[in-house]
Amino acid sequence: MKHLIPLASLIILLACAKPIPEEQISSPNIILFMVDDMGWQDTSVPFWNQVTEFNKRYHTLNMERLALEGMKFTQAYATAVCSPTRVSLLTGMNAARHRVTNWTLQPDQLKPMETNHDVFEFPMWNVNGISPDSSLPHSVYASPLPMVLRSHGYATIHVGKAHFGAIDTPGANPLNLGFDVNIAGHAAGAPKSYYGTENFGNTPEFEGTPWPVPGLEEYHGEDIYLTDALTNEALEALEHVDKPFFLYMSYYAVHTPIMANHKYFNKYLETGLDSIEARYATMIETMDNSVGRFLDYLQQRQLDSNTVILFMSDNGGLSAIARGGEPHTHNRPLSSGKGSIYEGGIREPMLVKWPGVVEPGSQSNNYLIIEDFYPTILEIAGIQNFLPVQIIDGISFLPVLQGKSPSNPSRPLFWHFPNEWGPTGPGIGAYSAVRLDGWKLIYYHHDGSYELFNIDNDISEAVNLSTDEPEKREELAVILSNYLVSVDAQMPTYLESGAPVPYPQ
Amino acid sequence: MKHLIPLASLIILLACAKPIPEEQISSPNIILFMVDDMGWQDTSVPFWNQVTEFNKRYHTLNMERLALEGMKFTQAYATAVCSPTRVSLLTGMNAARHRVTNWTLQPDQLKPMETNHDVFEFPMWNVNGISPDSSLPHSVYASPLPMVLRSHGYATIHVGKAHFGAIDTPGANPLNLGFDVNIAGHAAGAPKSYYGTENFGNTPEFEGTPWPVPGLEEYHGEDIYLTDALTNEALEALEHVDKPFFLYMSYYAVHTPIMANHKYFNKYLETGLDSIEARYATMIETMDNSVGRFLDYLQQRQLDSNTVILFMSDNGGLSAIARGGEPHTHNRPLSSGKGSIYEGGIREPMLVKWPGVVEPGSQSNNYLIIEDFYPTILEIAGIQNFLPVQIIDGISFLPVLQGKSPSNPSRPLFWHFPNEWGPTGPGIGAYSAVRLDGWKLIYYHHDGSYELFNIDNDISEAVNLSTDEPEKREELAVILSNYLVSVDAQMPTYLESGAPVPYPQ
Repeated sequence: MKHLIPLASLIILLACAKPIPEEQISSPNIILFMVDDMGWQDTSVPFWNQVTEFNKRYHTLNMERLALEGMKFTQAYATAVCSPTRVSLLTGMNAARHRVTNWTLQPDQLKPMETNHDVFEFPMWNVNGISPDSSLPHSVYASPLPMVLRSHGYATIHVGKAHFGAIDTPGANPLNLGFDVNIAGHAAGAPKSYYGTENFGNTPEFEGTPWPVPGLEEYHGEDIYLTDALTNEALEALEHVDKPFFLYMSYYAVHTPIMANHKYFNKYLETGLDSIEARYATMIETMDNSVGRFLDYLQQRQLDSNTVILFMSDNGGLSAIARGGEPHTHNRPLSSGKGSIYEGGIREPMLVKWPGVVEPGSQSNNYLIIEDFYPTILEIAGIQNFLPVQIIDGISFLPVLQGKSPSNPSRPLFWHFPNEWGPTGPGIGAYSAVRLDGWKLIYYHHDGSYELFNIDNDISEAVNLSTDEPEKREELAVILSNYLVSVDAQMPTYLESGAPVPYPQ
Repeated sequence: MKHLIPLASLIILLACAKPIPEEQISSPNIILFMVDDMGWQDTSVPFWNQVTEFNKRYHTLNMERLALEGMKFTQAYATAVCSPTRVSLLTGMNAARHRVTNWTLQPDQLKPMETNHDVFEFPMWNVNGISPDSSLPHSVYASPLPMVLRSHGYATIHVGKAHFGAIDTPGANPLNLGFDVNIAGHAAGAPKSYYGTENFGNTPEFEGTPWPVPGLEEYHGEDIYLTDALTNEALEALEHVDKPFFLYMSYYAVHTPIMANHKYFNKYLETGLDSIEARYATMIETMDNSVGRFLDYLQQRQLDSNTVILFMSDNGGLSAIARGGEPHTHNRPLSSGKGSIYEGGIREPMLVKWPGVVEPGSQSNNYLIIEDFYPTILEIAGIQNFLPVQIIDGISFLPVLQGKSPSNPSRPLFWHFPNEWGPTGPGIGAYSAVRLDGWKLIYYHHDGSYELFNIDNDISEAVNLSTDEPEKREELAVILSNYLVSVDAQMPTYLESGAPVPYPQ
């Protein structure tokens, strides 16, 4: 078991070395819509086996359009917080390996909530994020996805939230990671304001904070929502492209601050929604409307048949703080939300459209995880001969897109968070976890306890089977432990004993 | 009419020169509870002639206690935004005179929304706030209330929000304005966070912003709400006082960010309240609980019979942005809210307790305005021989406290806002206004239009009588105009014509 992941990496390399079918050699355009903090149920597209109240609440006609024209993934995973996901996307590495396990911002230091913790001394994780420069301390050195794409002839465009590297490090600037164009991306993971009338937070009141959105000065003072300004700029950038493009459309929405798009606000308020939730719903609809503008643009420019569209979120929907109504209920039937190892924190709404390859209106219940996007996108782009400096954990899901079985149906997925996020709630804290087939084992660092769930039967993770199913628990603990050993995963140290938290097995 | 205010000032000086009854010579302790952004209906104490849904929603048992033991003022006014009110309180001047007509923060510059306005070029108002130093440009030079009290033997304690002067100006520090002690006050008018667990906003993420609350380091990392930390510190400060004291208990609450005190949150949520409104209700109850801790403390120390308590808010309840539910409805039956010249923006919940002087359970329907606190408090303190450097607009309401008629029952009150606040809504914008007896005339700068309301009959300002009652309109326009002329009130200039907005008459 110890060699599992190097083997998996080999499988990728082999997969990439396979002959590529004709339609993929043509270097299709690729748009990746990455929504921030969007939950699995924050859409009118049903990702569960029944239509929920949330599906009725949200209006995402363009996601419905994508689902009709493409494939819906019901078990797509990310990590529970933003930076680990985004670094996994750009490197193909699992978070336990790249060690950007918490969200980045300030360089060279742990987060405040990690330096004053009651129970743990936390390891110095890669607080500086991803770096194209191997000499930067506390960062992961890797060949970023857009850099590989660019070196193989793609135009690469970054729009919106970057959040790849700490302030003043090279990785903070998308241009240093292989993007030709950067619109409004920097070190921070949230906007100070979504309103052009508030200059997206660029006011003297907030001078010096990292949150004002950069680079959209022409919209300052205008009555425009950030999502719409980003869409305008992205469409404008596409006008200047004369080769295959990779557009990373990375919405700041629907992250806090939860600010209404007033165009839609009353509509939701009048349904009796809590006002925070009504605001949130407008953020979702504004994002969806932006997706529609791209779909329309592709049709108008007759680019739609040669453009692959991927839609994904970076972690579960926020539910521990700042949302309306009862905490931890916003992703039901999934338990908990952003920051949690429960499904509510990690399961994402994912869609892929690829005319001629992906069967319209299809659905995949195969699980996958965010680091799989790296090898998949490179394979979609027809890029075979690349030698990244990092070891790739991800496995291409191109076969699934083509309607075949996944290349490794019984692979384990791993999560590792030896950190402190901030807010509290179910499944939130320092943990490691593994998913294999229908099972998920969680190992909590603070007390070494386990939770074992059968996700296939118990999507809400209500029944902990770790006592009733000791063999399954043991089997998964070994797999998890071996993986953590193989990547030399960082662990917290107990303040009381001075000893590190042991690996699960 | 032109000499109205100098005359009014004379009345004050004469009032102060009258013989002072025995019970006031004893220099009672004075506590002024100033709540930030609290609306007229944000309490279980009914300030209208009927119990409203809001009175049922909020739980303010200690305000009820104050109302039972003291006097309730149903028509107490402030200005519509914070700094003008606070400067009027500390100087006794009307905002038209002191010219700190908008809220302060950045030194030497107009607000961003004032420099990019569609219609107006705005005058350079006193953006630096109040100053004890006559040489500071763009500031009002005055003898601040606490300085007068201190020079007459009072211990003066500032707790909480100051917001008197722009960043790096002398007035930003309460110690420069006559306070012996300053707990947590500085230039900013809001806290970055109400949570000790978030260090009240003192985290690297917000380095350099003016909003982190200063001086409460001992609570950093603790699970304590800002209001409670301020109360702890204030009570501790009182332990060290050995002479009559003036405690200015200036809550940061209930200003944004609207953050729940989790101790009370579920209680309000379970009543079916919108989650923002449930949060807001917890902020109100936490403030009220703090008031109760002071009342208990005074009893325990047997100080209650010789302590005057005043309770006031600095402007109407926020309703244009950030609140739950439909905008502009949060102060009903009053129209609009903070920032508006309508009653919702300027009418405040006010209570005064003074054992032996104020009749318990009494009510005054006489109107008064925030600058009246200056001469009143000095008169309560028995201070007769003071010669402030500024002209005082305020009139003491001590006679009202004593159960007599007001000294000038038919005086006009003035509001003047030649500025841009930011959010929009009913009655929000640049305006001048006058209240006289039952009438209120509003003059809107952008188009020179009038609104005339009979407040006594129409508290919601639904019926504009400016056409039906031309004589009353004319009479009030003259009074308003004369006052503005007498203080050389600043006016905006129309961008289109380059001409200043004329005075109303």
